[in-house]
Amino acid sequence: MGYQPRPQDQRFVLDAVLGTTAKLQALAPFAEFDESLQSQLLDEAARFVGGVIAPLNRIGDEAGCRFDKGEVTSPPGFREAYRALWQAGWPALSAAPEDGGQGLPSLMAAIVSEWLSASNQGFNMAPGLLHGAYECIKHHGSDELKQRYLPKLASGEWLATMCLSEAHAGSDLGQVRTQALPQADGSFRVSGSKIFISGGEHDLSDNIVHLVLCRVPGSPAGPKGLSLVLAPRMLPDGARNAVHCERIEEKMGLHASPTCQMRFDEATGWLIGEPGRGLQAMFVMMNSARLLTALQGIGLLDAAWQKADAYARERRQMRAPQVPPSRGPNDAADLIIEHPAMRRILDTQRGWIDGARVLAYRTALMLDVAKHTTDGAERERAQRWCSLITPVLKAACTQQGFDGASACLQVFGGHGYVREWGVEQIVRDARVSMLYEGTNEIQAIDLLVRKVLPDGGAGMGKLLIELRDELEASRDTDADAQRRLAQLRYLTTTVAMASHADPALPYEVADDYLRVVMLTLMAWAWARIDVAASGEPDTSRWSVPAAAFRRHSLPEFDMRLGIVKRACETVTAQAQANSQAQPVA
Amino acid sequence: MGYQPRPQDQRFVLDAVLGTTAKLQALAPFAEFDESLQSQLLDEAARFVGGVIAPLNRIGDEAGCRFDKGEVTSPPGFREAYRALWQAGWPALSAAPEDGGQGLPSLMAAIVSEWLSASNQGFNMAPGLLHGAYECIKHHGSDELKQRYLPKLASGEWLATMCLSEAHAGSDLGQVRTQALPQADGSFRVSGSKIFISGGEHDLSDNIVHLVLCRVPGSPAGPKGLSLVLAPRMLPDGARNAVHCERIEEKMGLHASPTCQMRFDEATGWLIGEPGRGLQAMFVMMNSARLLTALQGIGLLDAAWQKADAYARERRQMRAPQVPPSRGPNDAADLIIEHPAMRRILDTQRGWIDGARVLAYRTALMLDVAKHTTDGAERERAQRWCSLITPVLKAACTQQGFDGASACLQVFGGHGYVREWGVEQIVRDARVSMLYEGTNEIQAIDLLVRKVLPDGGAGMGKLLIELRDELEASRDTDADAQRRLAQLRYLTTTVAMASHADPALPYEVADDYLRVVMLTLMAWAWARIDVAASGEPDTSRWSVPAAAFRRHSLPEFDMRLGIVKRACETVTAQAQANSQAQPVA
Repeated sequence: MGYQPRPQDQRFVLDAVLGTTAKLQALAPFAEFDESLQSQLLDEAARFVGGVIAPLNRIGDEAGCRFDKGEVTSPPGFREAYRALWQAGWPALSAAPEDGGQGLPSLMAAIVSEWLSASNQGFNMAPGLLHGAYECIKHHGSDELKQRYLPKLASGEWLATMCLSEAHAGSDLGQVRTQALPQADGSFRVSGSKIFISGGEHDLSDNIVHLVLCRVPGSPAGPKGLSLVLAPRMLPDGARNAVHCERIEEKMGLHASPTCQMRFDEATGWLIGEPGRGLQAMFVMMNSARLLTALQGIGLLDAAWQKADAYARERRQMRAPQVPPSRGPNDAADLIIEHPAMRRILDTQRGWIDGARVLAYRTALMLDVAKHTTDGAERERAQRWCSLITPVLKAACTQQGFDGASACLQVFGGHGYVREWGVEQIVRDARVSMLYEGTNEIQAIDLLVRKVLPDGGAGMGKLLIELRDELEASRDTDADAQRRLAQLRYLTTTVAMASHADPALPYEVADDYLRVVMLTLMAWAWARIDVAASGEPDTSRWSVPAAAFRRHSLPEFDMRLGIVKRACETVTAQAQANSQAQPVA
Repeated sequence: MGYQPRPQDQRFVLDAVLGTTAKLQALAPFAEFDESLQSQLLDEAARFVGGVIAPLNRIGDEAGCRFDKGEVTSPPGFREAYRALWQAGWPALSAAPEDGGQGLPSLMAAIVSEWLSASNQGFNMAPGLLHGAYECIKHHGSDELKQRYLPKLASGEWLATMCLSEAHAGSDLGQVRTQALPQADGSFRVSGSKIFISGGEHDLSDNIVHLVLCRVPGSPAGPKGLSLVLAPRMLPDGARNAVHCERIEEKMGLHASPTCQMRFDEATGWLIGEPGRGLQAMFVMMNSARLLTALQGIGLLDAAWQKADAYARERRQMRAPQVPPSRGPNDAADLIIEHPAMRRILDTQRGWIDGARVLAYRTALMLDVAKHTTDGAERERAQRWCSLITPVLKAACTQQGFDGASACLQVFGGHGYVREWGVEQIVRDARVSMLYEGTNEIQAIDLLVRKVLPDGGAGMGKLLIELRDELEASRDTDADAQRRLAQLRYLTTTVAMASHADPALPYEVADDYLRVVMLTLMAWAWARIDVAASGEPDTSRWSVPAAAFRRHSLPEFDMRLGIVKRACETVTAQAQANSQAQPVA
């Protein structure tokens, strides 16, 4: 049984918790976007994902991609499913109407992407890169490149890659060596080798548009010397470009997605943006790409949860501690879901999924706001949210995707370890998202070192005050969530001060700090859900995971807070001791 | 590069921390066992494991077992390696001399088994079951069965299985349906289907001895009606028995170990022990089997750590926050190990491995003591330790094996996700140990519900007092470890009291309680290591993981303690409210 999206869950978060429609309607391009259109869209997407994409998940894992003499064959059914996807217009959802897109909020595209990840991440790897490539060319490409590539990328008729890593340069893009030599006609000849290129070669689309990070002659060493060049698989005249797939990786999971080693042999390409501004051109899509990665974690966790929940409601194993209502007179064992340890796994993971969705959809909304609002203060707030919260979600949701899927596997007992039930595939597929788009450790450093500390924590402080005010404005006030918001504000100041004494400190505590931020946000999200759910017919749908999250997951907040505080205290005490030991000049 | 055992680490734990030799010498069979024999043994085992078994780990995963018409072919090299293993006498290490064994402490066998797991768990699955089958027949088999099977099982010339689970009965053995019909000659005809039978069929040994949990006619329903029958693949007269492998499972990992679905078609077998006493016959080996499973977790974590540590000391990636001594004038990036987030992963996992080894080796020692001591009080103490601590180690070490291996994978960045470096295989191979030999949730229930609470926590209290006294007797006293021992004693009483008010409570908090016990034991283990390491030439070998464990892992203690306490308080408050609401009769 494949993943089945449940749009009613999304509707609740969007309408009852976040009130997204009104906020979107306030933006000029979405003035006509209403709940009825949203509802229709979600229902159609859910049908398509559940009916067309989800059934291919297992064959994708089992058959995988085949590599032979530079060509990659997709798993059976993938080519047809991809054609169905782009012809139905799903990749074009949030692309601009002038490029043939539907001009809908990226919030909608984010939800569809979450469902595609949940149903078949191996499949979703290919279209998952489209939006970033589209945005990159749209912002930085020449008119000619835009004309030639935007419509095909907007529709998804052509697919795209990001060619960044090289064998010696994984997270460290400043070390990239691929060369691009300018030609008389304004084009470039690209030469070099790239690794870990998702969808570098395949048979899903007639063309593949490679965005290649490289160096033009005379550029300085390090990241400031990087340029971005577009080198398509098929040249405009129909000839094959000198871009070769040399092999595909054998991976823990995502067997349906070819991870290619690519060789550019004086391939023809065109510069995107200015020479030496390659990283900037790429970074335009970073928040969006990281958010989609966070949604992979949420989606795969929901997929594992669905499987485990169904299994636990159907299979009987051992006696529950108390006679459950589901025990019939002839049942020698009780349903797995009646066992407290299994119930706890399911409810706690549900708590992560539901809470994280509130945060992820809010972030997608903020991306729309940042892009389209005409109000400068609102744009600043939205940008601050995206900048600070995206790395938090990327790291925390992908980690939960893996850990939580493994927890759901546990519900199956020994059956979880064999292929049959599909849950072990989810665990394998989920693992990589903790590594790509910047490892989770890099997200933590991005958050604390690059974003929170440079202004002494002022931006994070403002964001937390906004969250506090939003809670106060809602019908009910959750004192617990308020307390955590205040504690995080204080912690941020503490870290900022201690980091003056020891510049290595933030690198030591970045992972813990990120967890404190995530748990604070989750407490806030559940406080918001509580208020919204009080008007729902089935309150236990939300109160049960709320209770599980607070009982089993939220205690990590104090633990992490303590770890960070103790590290700061040690540094501060050491600095004081040093200054006292200093002889008076 | 395969796993390389480092016997100096074992020697330190055995000699400096636990002082095992003197304790073993006090037991009659090991009077001659000294540090020199131990050292020689460890060195030889390390050479054999590192040289013969470790190099087959990857081919085992890649080639896997092949199934064709009921026959299973092992991966290339496995048959030869298994022959080398048993001919070198490794399976016979702790078997009794009268059966051709070497009569050495099970402590030594446990360490060899940890190394075999670390180097190649897919290979070790087969010999890993030998010791249990040997013990089971030795304790409960008839003289004829002993004569026929013990020598071949002691040497490892023949392999064995445990046929327990059936399609509808995984953890719940009371539901087993396989039938055994008595015959006139005293034998039985066994009919039924079993699933998840590790090594049910293979080409490693000439015979496979199946121990089959089944029912004889007229036995009551449930676990009390279970009997244990020995049904070999090859009958004593050389004919093939009616035991068939119907298929092997496709698993997340352990591809080198065939997980078989077995069909018994009126197969010939002989009862082991009394009818209806099958579970008791099996349980004789349970503590030992669970300890070996815990050692799988420790071993695989050490294997992942070795790989990650080597990679981090060799590869350069990005700039460390402060200039490290390892940065040469031409190095554009620093060693991965110089990055605090990576250093933290490695040191913290090292902290788990080293501390858990102290606990696991102490448990193996206690198994030897329980078996051989003539002092009744000492036997009682040893049995109490094994009974209470084995489920804790099984659950905690297998979880850490998986989570910690995944953490080590993170050190490789994207390279960790591809097969090349071998770390993703360790993550896949490690996952199953959280499920078999009783899922980790069942271990927690075993600990709290079946072992701690029945005597109101008195046994656990005695054990904790012994640990306290041992700490006090050592040169130094760790106030922190002492405090945790006291807190756990108090917590145990609190849970015992609250459980009277709500019998479901222990099932709700069992997992958290088990974690509190493990973290208390780890704090104790590290306090013991501290003392022992003060006399070592390189103190940082031990002080670095000690600090990392205390800083990053030990804070979970307060978190879990709080979760259990709050659950108890809620129950107690509810009970008080109920009793006050009760009308006076």
